[in-house]
Amino acid sequence: MATRSTIMDTNSFRAEHAAALDADERRLTEKRSKLLGDSYRLFYRKPVHLVRGQGQYLWDAHGDKYLDVYNNVASIGHCHPAVIAAVHEQMQQLNTHTRYLHGRILDYTEDLLGTLPAEITKAMYMCTGSEANDLAIRIARAYSGGTGIIVSQEAYHGTSGLTSGVSPALGSGQPLAATTRLVPAPDRYRVDAPDLGAWFAAEIQKQIDDMAAHGIQFAGFLADSIFSSDGVLPGPAGYLKEAVEVVHRNGGIFIADEVQPGFARTGEAFWGFARHGVVPDVVTTGKPMGNGIPVSGLLARPEVLAAFSDDIPYFNTFGGNPVSIAAAQAVLRVIREEGLQRHSLEVGGQLQAELAKLAERHENVGDVRGTGLFIGFELVTDRASKTPDKALALDVVEKLREQRVLTSVAGPHGNVLKLRPPLAFQTHDIDWLVSALDTALSTCAQQRRNAAVPA
Amino acid sequence: MATRSTIMDTNSFRAEHAAALDADERRLTEKRSKLLGDSYRLFYRKPVHLVRGQGQYLWDAHGDKYLDVYNNVASIGHCHPAVIAAVHEQMQQLNTHTRYLHGRILDYTEDLLGTLPAEITKAMYMCTGSEANDLAIRIARAYSGGTGIIVSQEAYHGTSGLTSGVSPALGSGQPLAATTRLVPAPDRYRVDAPDLGAWFAAEIQKQIDDMAAHGIQFAGFLADSIFSSDGVLPGPAGYLKEAVEVVHRNGGIFIADEVQPGFARTGEAFWGFARHGVVPDVVTTGKPMGNGIPVSGLLARPEVLAAFSDDIPYFNTFGGNPVSIAAAQAVLRVIREEGLQRHSLEVGGQLQAELAKLAERHENVGDVRGTGLFIGFELVTDRASKTPDKALALDVVEKLREQRVLTSVAGPHGNVLKLRPPLAFQTHDIDWLVSALDTALSTCAQQRRNAAVPA
Repeated sequence: MATRSTIMDTNSFRAEHAAALDADERRLTEKRSKLLGDSYRLFYRKPVHLVRGQGQYLWDAHGDKYLDVYNNVASIGHCHPAVIAAVHEQMQQLNTHTRYLHGRILDYTEDLLGTLPAEITKAMYMCTGSEANDLAIRIARAYSGGTGIIVSQEAYHGTSGLTSGVSPALGSGQPLAATTRLVPAPDRYRVDAPDLGAWFAAEIQKQIDDMAAHGIQFAGFLADSIFSSDGVLPGPAGYLKEAVEVVHRNGGIFIADEVQPGFARTGEAFWGFARHGVVPDVVTTGKPMGNGIPVSGLLARPEVLAAFSDDIPYFNTFGGNPVSIAAAQAVLRVIREEGLQRHSLEVGGQLQAELAKLAERHENVGDVRGTGLFIGFELVTDRASKTPDKALALDVVEKLREQRVLTSVAGPHGNVLKLRPPLAFQTHDIDWLVSALDTALSTCAQQRRNAAVPA
Repeated sequence: MATRSTIMDTNSFRAEHAAALDADERRLTEKRSKLLGDSYRLFYRKPVHLVRGQGQYLWDAHGDKYLDVYNNVASIGHCHPAVIAAVHEQMQQLNTHTRYLHGRILDYTEDLLGTLPAEITKAMYMCTGSEANDLAIRIARAYSGGTGIIVSQEAYHGTSGLTSGVSPALGSGQPLAATTRLVPAPDRYRVDAPDLGAWFAAEIQKQIDDMAAHGIQFAGFLADSIFSSDGVLPGPAGYLKEAVEVVHRNGGIFIADEVQPGFARTGEAFWGFARHGVVPDVVTTGKPMGNGIPVSGLLARPEVLAAFSDDIPYFNTFGGNPVSIAAAQAVLRVIREEGLQRHSLEVGGQLQAELAKLAERHENVGDVRGTGLFIGFELVTDRASKTPDKALALDVVEKLREQRVLTSVAGPHGNVLKLRPPLAFQTHDIDWLVSALDTALSTCAQQRRNAAVPA
């Protein structure tokens, strides 16, 4: 484990070697572009060279400490000792595939299914959220007999060929599948609809009708219930109900992509969809499931899954291996033992309240919304026009980095700060984040005023 | 680590509780079919409940010790201490994504690229072989401007939507993509061609021509150079050269799927394709890369990769994280330090010699072939007709299990034993395997003779 003395060592090391380390970062950046594919994009104009993490904090090679307000992979906290111990213990015993019997996967599955509606009784395991969504789409097609998939306008559901075709967030370089249809995101800040649920359900019906007009049979609606890529849009609890009814009425399935909101993140419930009182046909998981160990899952109603598994073989070599499952078990246990769902709700609520106060002082903050520790902080040129201010959002992200707060942006206009810290984020961290945001917003506003003055 | 005393404890435990454990296995099997998707197929009529592994050995819940002759995931040996230590150390420091700088991925990439031809200079990382092949197909399409992919008749390249469409091994339940074409496997035992290389190249040209006739532009040839799913067919060194020339002449790329033969398995070289003196455009890796920790890679010529990455974003959250890379680094180091490539060649050669001797005594063994510790052992009704004997192969696999030797079958007829132990397999293990095979073959032959006698 990281100790106080290693931190102090790093700090004294820093004083002497800061210049050398900057050179080191240049060297790493160059080596990176030489050796890795150009898809490897770095965060920040001046990249961060991280070497250590613990809880909600990260340290760079200079020994500087950062507040992580972005990472939902290390969801129960960076380097959580329970996950380290569980993985270490299982690695010493056995790590093999699922074609032999092993108790661990069954105990975990029982535990995991216990968090889900009673209708969902079957589990499968993969390594990434992309793999889970890729399979979910194939299940939707096998069950419905159709091919058409509806997603939201800025959705991201994965990096495989199939999931890229339902991920408009990837931009124009990646064409959508001919069978993909988009619905506008249920964005309460921008959509003027007195009844968001009825409006959203109608949008889905419209796209199903458009599919039919093109001879495409509807297969399913795939959505992350908090619409994170669309700008973190929790919306009112329950509004998704009508949409799911429309999906079922038209013979499709509802796939709840819980890669982002799942595992206690939203505070109100263990799963994002739960606040809507709906029962998905398929639930997919990923990022936070193993706190960084690659493990993902697909949970389904048995009759829906059977339509696929009756005909099509599926075997994922690493999926559900005892080591991945050990990590996943530790995560589930820690969420319970540390009460992280309630924690997310409480601290997330406090953070949202402070952000709302901050917003009062900054005209550029258009909206603050979220549930638990999943918060969207939307920046606009002014509140009246609500014009998205992407340039400001990017500047703020860079200014936050200078104050050692790590986060990033989301939404179709790239103007929404995505505030999604590890659930280890504490009340005492709020001040760091909110002050840094305050400074960043003030500095950016000042710089703009200065730039506006003719020379 | 597993100690002598735990083994003894397990043994005494066994004597008392064998009956209870059988009940336990029944319980696990039932629980498994209740909780997991029906795609989860178990090996063996009487499933094996494994609880521990070390090197080339596995132990079940009864304390019985098995010789693993099948697992190329735990390639450098089950529970190798170097991988355990590397993962444990890195897990205590940091495990995050690749959008921050980190030295480990760069050091490893430099090291890995050093094992490849100089033309291949760029790396990307994912979590599974399926993800690597899925991306490889998309790269082939971006680079060539075409869509058509050629694979061998019984190929298996992955479990995603895209890779399933180029995996005829999945059977008729899983349709091939309309753009997929199959070539017969280069099977020296069954194909009567004086020049295997010329014959195989002509088969590829035929399929490219067929694509053209259907208005499909050729994108690439995707093959595991040992054609493992087709029945483990190393063929003569160098024969793939002409095929690769045909591929390039027609504007396609050659993707070497090294998920099976890579990482010193074939003994002759570090990579399977290397014995053919060809330079692939893209190399994909998976199973043995992290000895069980989910990590895979895609290595490519820069100009080929650029055709994809210039337009299409790709980010794999877990891919290339410091913990996965730590495992991969340990594997690469152990292969070198323990001289596993030479070991695979030598012990594999000894094993093949013993298997050839065994074959002389059993009329049902049609062919023994392999390179290093990757061996196909083909069973036929008789040597003259070469009629594949799948029933015998399945019976032998079950009889081997009774003698605590774990393996499975491959090939379009399911009649080839796939002998592919962890590289930790030693000379002193040969006897266990060969005697067990001898007994299994004799017993099966005797049972058939008995069954043939009228009652």
